[in-house]
Order: sequence, then C-alpha cells, then structure tokens
Amino acid sequence: MKLYSRAAFLLVLFLLLGALDSAGQEAKDLKLPPPQTQGGMPLMQALKERQTSRDFSAEKLPLQTLSNLLWAADGVNRPDGKRTAPSAVNWQNIDIYAALAEGLYVYDPKANALKLVLEKDVREVTGKQDFVKLVPLDLVYVADFSKITRGTDEDKSFYSAAHTGFISQNVYLYCASAGLSTVVRGLIDKAEIAKVFQLRPDQKVMLSQSVGFPKKK
Amino acid sequence: MKLYSRAAFLLVLFLLLGALDSAGQEAKDLKLPPPQTQGGMPLMQALKERQTSRDFSAEKLPLQTLSNLLWAADGVNRPDGKRTAPSAVNWQNIDIYAALAEGLYVYDPKANALKLVLEKDVREVTGKQDFVKLVPLDLVYVADFSKITRGTDEDKSFYSAAHTGFISQNVYLYCASAGLSTVVRGLIDKAEIAKVFQLRPDQKVMLSQSVGFPKKK
Repeated sequence: MKLYSRAAFLLVLFLLLGALDSAGQEAKDLKLPPPQTQGGMPLMQALKERQTSRDFSAEKLPLQTLSNLLWAADGVNRPDGKRTAPSAVNWQNIDIYAALAEGLYVYDPKANALKLVLEKDVREVTGKQDFVKLVPLDLVYVADFSKITRGTDEDKSFYSAAHTGFISQNVYLYCASAGLSTVVRGLIDKAEIAKVFQLRPDQKVMLSQSVGFPKKK
Repeated sequence: MKLYSRAAFLLVLFLLLGALDSAGQEAKDLKLPPPQTQGGMPLMQALKERQTSRDFSAEKLPLQTLSNLLWAADGVNRPDGKRTAPSAVNWQNIDIYAALAEGLYVYDPKANALKLVLEKDVREVTGKQDFVKLVPLDLVYVADFSKITRGTDEDKSFYSAAHTGFISQNVYLYCASAGLSTVVRGLIDKAEIAKVFQLRPDQKVMLSQSVGFPKKK
C-alpha cells in the first residue's frame, strides 16, 4: 500500500509538473485579440495602393494590427475552418512564421495565437538587407510537405509557391489598406533560415516578407 | 522609270494591305472600358467572403466587369507601369489568357485590352470539369520564361508559381467583392493547353481559374 501511494504521489507530481510546464510554454505564446474582420479600404482602392516599399521605421506593430494582418494573410474565415487563402486540396500546408524582437513565433489560425518557437530575436536571419533587423515583423512562409499527400516534390514546390503567393498578396493588400510598408523577399538564405528556425527536412522555406510602419516624413 | 513606278506602286499596295490587315486584327481585339479603380467591398469583408465556388451560371460577364477583374488581377496601378501584383525583379512575366465563348484573348494591361489570340472557343481545353465549357470566362496564367533574365528553370518555376498566386488571389478577392463565383484549378492538361494556345516552348502554363455568376437560386 505504501509503495502504491508513493507511485500515485509521483504520478500526480509528474502530471502536475507536466501541466505547469505546458502552461509555462503557453504563457509565452502571444494570444492575439480577435481580428477585426470588417472594414478596411474599399478593395479597388487597396489594389490601387498596393505596392512594394522598403521604407520602414522600427516602430512596433500594435497587437491588434498583428492579429488583423495574420488573419488577413491566412486566417480562418468560415465555420468549416477554411481560410482567407485557398490551398490545393485544402492541404493548408503553409505555416507563417513571425520573427519579432521578442522571439520567433508560428501563427496558429485556429487558436488565433502566435505560438512561441524560439525565445530569441532572429529577424536578421530572414534576409540580407539591413532593414530586416529593424522592421518590427519579418514573416517567413514555410511549406509543410508532410501535409501534402500526393505528387512529386516538383508538384509540392509548385503548389506551395502558388499558395505562398495567395497569402502574401493578402498581406500586401492588408498593408495597403492599413498604411503599412511591406516587401516580399525571395533572395534569402533558405538553408540558414531552416537551421536557425530548427525546421524538419520536410519543411521548406518559401519566401519572406517584412512589414512595418513607414518612416515619419 | 516604269519599273521604278511599278515597284513603288507595289510597295504602297503592300504597306496598305499590311495596315489593313493589322487594323483588321486590331478590330478583333476587345477594347475594354476603363477599369473602375475605386469602390468595392471593404477589404476585410472581401477577405471574409473569399471562397472557392464551383456554382456557375452561363451568364456572360459585362465588359465593365471583365475590365475591372483583369485590372484587379494584374493591371497597371501606378504611373511607372507597376502592377496590382508584385513580381520578382519587376519581370512582370505572367500573361493572363482569357478564354471566352468569342475566342481566346491575352490581357494587355498597358492598352487595357484583350488581344485576340484565336477566334475560337477553347474554354473546354482549360480543364477537366464540366463547368469549364459553361462558365463565361476561363483564365489561364502563363509564365513567359523569356522575360526572366536569370536563375535556373527551378527558380523560374518557383517565382512564376508565386507570381501566379499573387494574381489569382486578386481575382479571388475581386470575385468576393463583386458577387462572382470562382475556382482556381491546378489539375489541368498543361501540354494540351500549350498546344491549343500555340504557346512557345518558353511559355509555361501555370494554373487556370474559372469565373462566372453563381446560379440563380
């Protein structure tokens, strides 16, 4: 009986520690306010204003802006879990990594949260230009090939690249509407990003995109 | 002298016939009304409404709608000739082919016109589903590799696929805003499309996208 209660005690302790640990990890996630899914610039005007800009200030993005931007990018827009960007066979196989000064996160559209990946500022690894270290947000689009259940690697790359385009254009239009600067970047060191982000071999870096406020004139 | 005037006469005749022929060809182009670059649904609402739909009626699209849609897709949105969709190094290497009942056209964003490619209904070649023959518009995105001045074929495919995604998402959002149904399609016979469209070997078929009004309920 004594052995039994000790085992039970250890089990309870183990479970408690596990819960605490997981709560500790979750505490470091960035819970986002609900996205504002109404409003914004009329679509045609947003398309007219859409442009690439490398004019960035270091000013942080408000959490509400971050939430709206990520929802616009690839958020859940329907009760069935479907998203603002289409994906072949609904594989939903692009993960949006967000490098902030506070750390590296991955967007969880269902939980509307940024899950902590690394408690470290890795912005500079996302690109070669000086501004990538300065901007408040560097997005990195990563294709999860494990979610694509058929096709050659060439097919998977093709669909993932198109899928990244769908998402990135949403970010462009959101930035146009919200008065933010943004540039999508293809000249990136994908191997280095994969290493620093600790990606699995079947996770493939696609493109990066910097977002921030323009410099005050 | 007589020989000279006969040569001159033939030259004039040749030039005249050439001009007539080119005018005849141009007469068959579809000049579009200027796009309406203001208005539309607020962006966040368009993102909320964005979805894939295969519910199509055969009703034709008004020319104004066609003009707005193509401008939204990849039209010129700035005085420097830049477009609503970004492209790597500003190569602007995706051509939008538009298969209508009247024929096959290619969108010329600078002239805001649909240039006639084939005076023939080729909609059914753009896909495998029954609706592709019925819908008023099947777009086919074609990458022109001759405009991409560096990189491997793999790089060119990657950038072209992402570029197609940027454009196609614009079409999705325009359709959401304008109450149109649309579906982007990847399961297409690219070789057959290239043959029927009489593409050059360095023109690569990317994706197709059908657009039309939803069926009346």
